[in-house]
Amino acid sequence: MYSYRRLFEFTQNVFLNMGCPPEDAKLATEVLLSADLRGIDSHGVARLSGYVRLWEAGRINPKPNIRIVHETPSTATVDGDGGLGLLVAPRAMAIARQKAAQVGTGWVSVKNSNHFGIAGYHAMMALEEDMIGIAMTNASPLVAPTFSTDRMLGTNPIAVAVPTNNQPPFVADLATAAAANGKLEILQRKEKKAPVGWIQTEEGHRSTNANELKEGGALLPLGSDRVHGSHKGYALSAVVDILSAVLSGANYGPWVPPFVSFLPVAENLPGEGIGHFLGAMRIDAFRPADEFKYHMDNWIGAFRKAKVKKGEKAVLIPGDPEREMTTKRLQKGIPLLAPVERDLEALAQRFNINF
Amino acid sequence: MYSYRRLFEFTQNVFLNMGCPPEDAKLATEVLLSADLRGIDSHGVARLSGYVRLWEAGRINPKPNIRIVHETPSTATVDGDGGLGLLVAPRAMAIARQKAAQVGTGWVSVKNSNHFGIAGYHAMMALEEDMIGIAMTNASPLVAPTFSTDRMLGTNPIAVAVPTNNQPPFVADLATAAAANGKLEILQRKEKKAPVGWIQTEEGHRSTNANELKEGGALLPLGSDRVHGSHKGYALSAVVDILSAVLSGANYGPWVPPFVSFLPVAENLPGEGIGHFLGAMRIDAFRPADEFKYHMDNWIGAFRKAKVKKGEKAVLIPGDPEREMTTKRLQKGIPLLAPVERDLEALAQRFNINF
Repeated sequence: MYSYRRLFEFTQNVFLNMGCPPEDAKLATEVLLSADLRGIDSHGVARLSGYVRLWEAGRINPKPNIRIVHETPSTATVDGDGGLGLLVAPRAMAIARQKAAQVGTGWVSVKNSNHFGIAGYHAMMALEEDMIGIAMTNASPLVAPTFSTDRMLGTNPIAVAVPTNNQPPFVADLATAAAANGKLEILQRKEKKAPVGWIQTEEGHRSTNANELKEGGALLPLGSDRVHGSHKGYALSAVVDILSAVLSGANYGPWVPPFVSFLPVAENLPGEGIGHFLGAMRIDAFRPADEFKYHMDNWIGAFRKAKVKKGEKAVLIPGDPEREMTTKRLQKGIPLLAPVERDLEALAQRFNINF
Repeated sequence: MYSYRRLFEFTQNVFLNMGCPPEDAKLATEVLLSADLRGIDSHGVARLSGYVRLWEAGRINPKPNIRIVHETPSTATVDGDGGLGLLVAPRAMAIARQKAAQVGTGWVSVKNSNHFGIAGYHAMMALEEDMIGIAMTNASPLVAPTFSTDRMLGTNPIAVAVPTNNQPPFVADLATAAAANGKLEILQRKEKKAPVGWIQTEEGHRSTNANELKEGGALLPLGSDRVHGSHKGYALSAVVDILSAVLSGANYGPWVPPFVSFLPVAENLPGEGIGHFLGAMRIDAFRPADEFKYHMDNWIGAFRKAKVKKGEKAVLIPGDPEREMTTKRLQKGIPLLAPVERDLEALAQRFNINF
């Protein structure tokens, strides 16, 4: 078990050693470790060495000039200047919130960025101002569209955070694939098999090999197969790609520069970096915030009271498991798998810092 | 086979007999039959008798005063005054487009409406102005959240239409359930079984009975079960419900007044009618439209060229099947199942009009 404080100091130190200004190193650390706190172990400190690898390859600019390149009263296009997505996304979200404060909603499409951690963090930034927050990003091409064997899309997540009154906030944060690559990475570290319906082989056959992606296989869209609606997961993933990248001028589809080390960067890129899409909607742009929050509490209350299927414990509200995990891990610490510990030890040596 | 023209005249006649003004009857018909043209047989003329049933029950106002009750430069809340959703949604979408023309994007949450036909129609309204169109609605509570046996959500669709240059537009239109109730209705009319993963029994066991919903069963969210991501389909459906109804003041969750005749209207409703959420984003609020459309063509071209899985014909782009069906049915006519024909004959008698 590692305390949040300990992982925070270490991670911040790594970002400082990459050349990030102190304020940026702190924010990037907060965003990255929000994944560990929320139990999304695949997206947290386990990926720190991945960011370092991209930085060493010259694909991350530690001192980016993040700026608006196009805007209207309710929109902006932001150039992330090759910065850490962990920094670019919160800055873009701040612009979305400013626009929402002025004209009701704000929408920011981002190009020239990198992996932004968990989408939920960015969406939740809107909550404190009684706004609904929305965050999406495209990602390494690992998902095959329905009927295809080519890896054309990322696991392209969508997060939506909704303010409440007495209930904790509603926070949906979901990959548009049947399972995110991070889940496979955990199975790999544990040397376990994957369920049928998550991945296919290079030829499109069903597979339970958690290492299948390294052998040319692909993740499947949410829905898994055509009969169960994989064309819907594919369409949602495509929408995320279009809003994040075709709208901003980032790379899209099979050209998204990969975060994973086993994929090469494509040639003749049609855009710059990876793309995000961030939105903020002021609740009182639609109805008084207290009315809305009263009804959100009522909505959540009704779902909590829904009849539970035999053998299950409770009907969950999106955000419940992550919030409970955060409380637990802040108290008891964050467990790391042995391969992640070894990764962090190597980073400590690499930068000559303590772990 | 029935010609589009014939079904159009008949349907328009029915709406006129319900007391709709001529212009409204025409628009409602166009919206309703866009489903038949696009091959979404469940949502088209097959539902006409359902609208009549709601009208007879006093749940549809044929002469609604559709109006904005709250607004900011980029948002509006619209009261549909109990009108046909087939009319309310296009009016709300027109408001979203006007707002987008002025400040870059427009977002309209609608209360006090009824079933609005297919979401894709409304999203596609934005295309002609080089805008991305978005449409969602909540619907009859038939879907059980993950781990529950209660029917708490509708099949709550999401549609996104994206303009292109030489390629046909990208049009995603998907229910957030594994399969929409309309698909079960078709299986019922054909007396066929449903695949495992679409529905569960009243106790939460797997079922292939296409009539299961009439016996207390529930539809399953996109993802079908927890391992394959049903919590993601549940979360998406919840987001649609919140944006459509909690934001506007419509009924939400288990209180949505049902379209299907086998469910009663709940008591102590927390809102008015059903809710929709409509959005329009001007492409050139983010980047020049010609640049965007060049890259959308490139995106679509890349996906069309993706390797096809053995045994399948082609990798489809969202909107492909519906567009091909429209061309075919405008030429060759629209097939109707016998129970639908009988329904329409009964309506002809009811209103003393020709079919």
